[in-house]
Amino acid sequence: MSGNTFGKLFKVTSFGEAHGPAIGCVVDGCPAGLLLSEQDIQKELDRRKPGQSHYTTQRREPDKVVILSGLFEGKTTGTPIALLIHNVDNRTKDYDALKSVFRPGHGDYTYYKKYGVRDHRGGGRASARETAVRVAAGAIAKKFLFEANAITIRGYLAQMDDIVIEHSQFSWDAIQENPFFCPDSTKISAMEQKIDHLRRLGDSCGARVNIQAENVPCGLGEPVYDKLDADLAKALMSINAVKGVEIGDGFQAVQQKGSEHRDEITPQGFLSNHAGGILAGISTGQSILASIALKPAASIRIPGQSINENNEAVEVVTTGRHDPCVGIRAVPIAEAMVALVLIDHWLLMYGKGTPLFGQ
Amino acid sequence: MSGNTFGKLFKVTSFGEAHGPAIGCVVDGCPAGLLLSEQDIQKELDRRKPGQSHYTTQRREPDKVVILSGLFEGKTTGTPIALLIHNVDNRTKDYDALKSVFRPGHGDYTYYKKYGVRDHRGGGRASARETAVRVAAGAIAKKFLFEANAITIRGYLAQMDDIVIEHSQFSWDAIQENPFFCPDSTKISAMEQKIDHLRRLGDSCGARVNIQAENVPCGLGEPVYDKLDADLAKALMSINAVKGVEIGDGFQAVQQKGSEHRDEITPQGFLSNHAGGILAGISTGQSILASIALKPAASIRIPGQSINENNEAVEVVTTGRHDPCVGIRAVPIAEAMVALVLIDHWLLMYGKGTPLFGQ
Amino acid sequence: MSGNTFGKLFKVTSFGEAHGPAIGCVVDGCPAGLLLSEQDIQKELDRRKPGQSHYTTQRREPDKVVILSGLFEGKTTGTPIALLIHNVDNRTKDYDALKSVFRPGHGDYTYYKKYGVRDHRGGGRASARETAVRVAAGAIAKKFLFEANAITIRGYLAQMDDIVIEHSQFSWDAIQENPFFCPDSTKISAMEQKIDHLRRLGDSCGARVNIQAENVPCGLGEPVYDKLDADLAKALMSINAVKGVEIGDGFQAVQQKGSEHRDEITPQGFLSNHAGGILAGISTGQSILASIALKPAASIRIPGQSINENNEAVEVVTTGRHDPCVGIRAVPIAEAMVALVLIDHWLLMYGKGTPLFGQ
Amino acid sequence: MSGNTFGKLFKVTSFGEAHGPAIGCVVDGCPAGLLLSEQDIQKELDRRKPGQSHYTTQRREPDKVVILSGLFEGKTTGTPIALLIHNVDNRTKDYDALKSVFRPGHGDYTYYKKYGVRDHRGGGRASARETAVRVAAGAIAKKFLFEANAITIRGYLAQMDDIVIEHSQFSWDAIQENPFFCPDSTKISAMEQKIDHLRRLGDSCGARVNIQAENVPCGLGEPVYDKLDADLAKALMSINAVKGVEIGDGFQAVQQKGSEHRDEITPQGFLSNHAGGILAGISTGQSILASIALKPAASIRIPGQSINENNEAVEVVTTGRHDPCVGIRAVPIAEAMVALVLIDHWLLMYGKGTPLFGQ
Repeated sequence: MSGNTFGKLFKVTSFGEAHGPAIGCVVDGCPAGLLLSEQDIQKELDRRKPGQSHYTTQRREPDKVVILSGLFEGKTTGTPIALLIHNVDNRTKDYDALKSVFRPGHGDYTYYKKYGVRDHRGGGRASARETAVRVAAGAIAKKFLFEANAITIRGYLAQMDDIVIEHSQFSWDAIQENPFFCPDSTKISAMEQKIDHLRRLGDSCGARVNIQAENVPCGLGEPVYDKLDADLAKALMSINAVKGVEIGDGFQAVQQKGSEHRDEITPQGFLSNHAGGILAGISTGQSILASIALKPAASIRIPGQSINENNEAVEVVTTGRHDPCVGIRAVPIAEAMVALVLIDHWLLMYGKGTPLFGQ
Repeated sequence: MSGNTFGKLFKVTSFGEAHGPAIGCVVDGCPAGLLLSEQDIQKELDRRKPGQSHYTTQRREPDKVVILSGLFEGKTTGTPIALLIHNVDNRTKDYDALKSVFRPGHGDYTYYKKYGVRDHRGGGRASARETAVRVAAGAIAKKFLFEANAITIRGYLAQMDDIVIEHSQFSWDAIQENPFFCPDSTKISAMEQKIDHLRRLGDSCGARVNIQAENVPCGLGEPVYDKLDADLAKALMSINAVKGVEIGDGFQAVQQKGSEHRDEITPQGFLSNHAGGILAGISTGQSILASIALKPAASIRIPGQSINENNEAVEVVTTGRHDPCVGIRAVPIAEAMVALVLIDHWLLMYGKGTPLFGQ
Repeated sequence: MSGNTFGKLFKVTSFGEAHGPAIGCVVDGCPAGLLLSEQDIQKELDRRKPGQSHYTTQRREPDKVVILSGLFEGKTTGTPIALLIHNVDNRTKDYDALKSVFRPGHGDYTYYKKYGVRDHRGGGRASARETAVRVAAGAIAKKFLFEANAITIRGYLAQMDDIVIEHSQFSWDAIQENPFFCPDSTKISAMEQKIDHLRRLGDSCGARVNIQAENVPCGLGEPVYDKLDADLAKALMSINAVKGVEIGDGFQAVQQKGSEHRDEITPQGFLSNHAGGILAGISTGQSILASIALKPAASIRIPGQSINENNEAVEVVTTGRHDPCVGIRAVPIAEAMVALVLIDHWLLMYGKGTPLFGQ
Repeated sequence: MSGNTFGKLFKVTSFGEAHGPAIGCVVDGCPAGLLLSEQDIQKELDRRKPGQSHYTTQRREPDKVVILSGLFEGKTTGTPIALLIHNVDNRTKDYDALKSVFRPGHGDYTYYKKYGVRDHRGGGRASARETAVRVAAGAIAKKFLFEANAITIRGYLAQMDDIVIEHSQFSWDAIQENPFFCPDSTKISAMEQKIDHLRRLGDSCGARVNIQAENVPCGLGEPVYDKLDADLAKALMSINAVKGVEIGDGFQAVQQKGSEHRDEITPQGFLSNHAGGILAGISTGQSILASIALKPAASIRIPGQSINENNEAVEVVTTGRHDPCVGIRAVPIAEAMVALVLIDHWLLMYGKGTPLFGQ
């Protein structure tokens, strides 16, 4: 409940501010014997890394991860794995003007009211920079889940503002080929124009990201309060800018009939997956399906009304680099959070002593 | 992580099956000195009670709560409060035909696969009957929050299938006057017809429920993983039949611009509440706004395909009593879950030793 | 941290006051498929039951346990097991004189100062009556550990005041044959005389209880803070009246040399067990050895100085029934606590989904 | 339960191996507004540092702490405080001969059996080097407790082998003036001779350390399982080499009478403190008194029998630097653990939002 630890058996404890010397985490509970290298983690970090195209933030962070503990001769030892990512591209001065000002739509106001003191530089702890830590820890979880159970977790951008991907054009391969994690190659050009347009306006837009996990064994999830879908909801809602979470058909279920929504079963398997792979909080063995809504970023060039620490009216303009659509980079982050939820439930069922790796 | 405990400082540990002798819970962590009676809890239970109108399930449970511990001379003592609700109206025989059959859309299949044994009677532990426990425990949390901080938590049915309440017709008072928790009295007649129609068809429909908490002090919520919205998402998604959770504008944010979504601030306060009262995971002091989607119940009279424990094809028809729209009764349940989240964060900030009650 | 839940994966949540209607607990996390009956629990409760001989308290409680949930057709289902023990022999009036008085050596003073309100009757929640709940929950853990791994947990009275059992006279069988759980039959008569003498004086004495667990697999215990010995220390120190805990040689190690204490190893096994079956917090596969000190009960007939709620000097005399040596009945309680620690660590290593029982 | 996190509200998550690049921790839950510098932590680390006199290990570690996050302009911000201590003096080659050998009395055997892989260098994660992390985190807790409540925590060496300090010679000031943390200056010379003698023999001896906390407010501790003494027992038993824990009179209580042990109360306060400042698991406001037994270190020059990973008999001789009495340096470590327990209970009672520091 201290806020910076995720998970019960595979615990990620995160630290660091956007403009401090480093961010990082301690991963405690990874079973011993997993082959793991910095490169395994780096390749996931690189998927999230800002500054890769002009469609996301221009802030350039090498986001180079270092493993400080928990490995011996290339394998995990069962002891805590500490990950460190040094901060490099800190134009701290960009933020001087905002020192005593609360940017609307950010945590500036609430951090100040809650703590009485705050690191205003780049959002401090509330910065989306923290999500690099999630991706790094999630990379370990992903690798374990794949090695132990062939579980895979993949996500994609399902909607950007009013641009909705079409399932008839869906391709997992397409995702690798564009900077939007977009599975519908016919929509790339529209997305490019949208971002360019928003950048000119100095505005931002929202997005929807979908996540899918496959080969999840039936039986994960603890009723009644630690249901798999409940834990996924918490994990996904904890991502910066997320305002909604759906499992399976989600809010479409409001206008469905029971005869339509219930997934009928045959000796050959389920006939549909409206439930999103979870019944009564427990995985069914079908694909786990989740979807999240991301709000438009509040850091925009269009001036906005706000107040400062003295409760005086001020006008706020974000002049630094920013993302016109933060939802794009949420794809690897959401994948990581799903991985962290699944590994926790997996370990609860199968135990951390399970001799997976020839021990 | 064992699944049946909710909360960290105000802990609710629930037990019981739909057709066992009783359901109940232990509430641990309630501060001492709160005036509390069985009646305080009973009145919330009565709001959720089935069999109150012909628009919800005909199962009749008196749902009479007994307090077994934790009170002395009418006040809480700081020790665990055990609540017991005996099961009465158990037509267990109704379920004999379903003993080895997995009803589609229920936990029958997943419980069997996870545990290898299951209490099939009325859904056993997976039954929505467990939500009575949530309401009972939530009643204590609600009372504490009101006494300690004047916090109020209210909910309403915002949509039933395609019937959407209109905000121009909204009235908190109206909610008390109809069996649907509907704040728009112009929609009652349509809802009655919808339920009657579904009952004739033997089908069911989904619903949307909105929850609002007022007077929540600024500063509740622990970044970055135990954000207030993340905890609300888990709490609400853990309710039976919930498939989606939104905070503030939720999925509408996908198609919003940053200039529209960010809530500007003036010395007199926020100019809007798209965020739903939470910024960066911490309450702002505005109203907390959450919305949930409930799927249409899977227990319907229309036959459905399924299998039994021997993986043989069977046809399933639910003949017993059921709810055409389980979302209606979700209103007091969702209120309870919001109360349980808020009290946990409140206690973390203010401490359980705070001398609220003249100690 | 709310105080009334023990364990992380096998969670026991306890409730009830000595003079309330009932005590009990919810056991959450017991794997499915374990054959379990009320009789399995009752037989352990009967070992702890007061009023069995005139050497322990004369308070007569049938301590009859009822299982309210979590079983189906004689097997655990993986859902919470609620246990209820009704209070019967409540001579509440015995305590009226003590209503506003703090008995020295009891929790009266601290409960009042902490909570501002207290149930004074028989110690309320602080009463040793709560230990019946530990024994009941421990009975389930014991049965699981034996079925799953042939683990056995046994205890005995090692010392009563100045009467020390001699290892040359040690017999596990003897323990069953006397009311003292004493393994040295040559000491029974001295113990009887000691108790009779103390009862005449109206005084009480301390005791030492030893616990031994066998067939514990090597590998249980999580370094560095959740070491097996650390968790045992907490579990045992949490028992009423316990003032000291030792693992293996305990305080004797202060005057030992390294060449004497370290347990040398040969291909045939360890040559000694000074460590008590735990190295670096992890079980070695040898017998787990623990020892506890129990203080002399404070409820005695000899008058003592104290104060009341108004901070006025009073003289306190306990007139009701009491134990001259509470350490005697601590044997089954300590066994139960060791079982609760071991099952938690066992489940962490092997998982709760392990198909032990032919699932 | 993952083993490397201590505390619930003030959480310390530790990482690092003796011969890895660094050790460190993340401290999560420290209230905002505390003035804190690296020097505050360094001065406690320096008290524990090896290589300070020839009476403890000659291993020289500067143990220089760096704060990576959680501070802004000299104050804690309420976000995680990451502490890093680089390892320097790693004569890793010293350990090559022990690569596949299990040193008796160490965690070598159990780590290998539990994890199937281990970092053998200097004990890896099981090394007492991890205790530097405890001292560093404890320094923050100590500072907070003093600033918030004037709570002080002090320890001393009460016995080394057969050398027992005499209370008539006791002086808190003396502790600062000798390398043994010995409060009885008449015993220094005997201690020096004892260490020199053991070093010549290549042997080691045990010790007893006492800890005392003052100004602890009445009311800390959560009955019945998270009693203050139970949490202290776990915290202290988790320290490397500890084999026993006592609260107040501890094992002396076995031979006491109730009329002697119970601490009588007058309007002016308690007449004695046999209980060690805790009744029924809750602090009384008196001094908290705890005592621990430390085993003689197993790393000695006297050859011992053991086995290697192939279960072959080997002879083990520790040739590197070592401590003849590890108990000496346990004093600041034990103080730190007591501080970590107290701050957790303090925050639970008073809340992390308490405006202590002029917020």
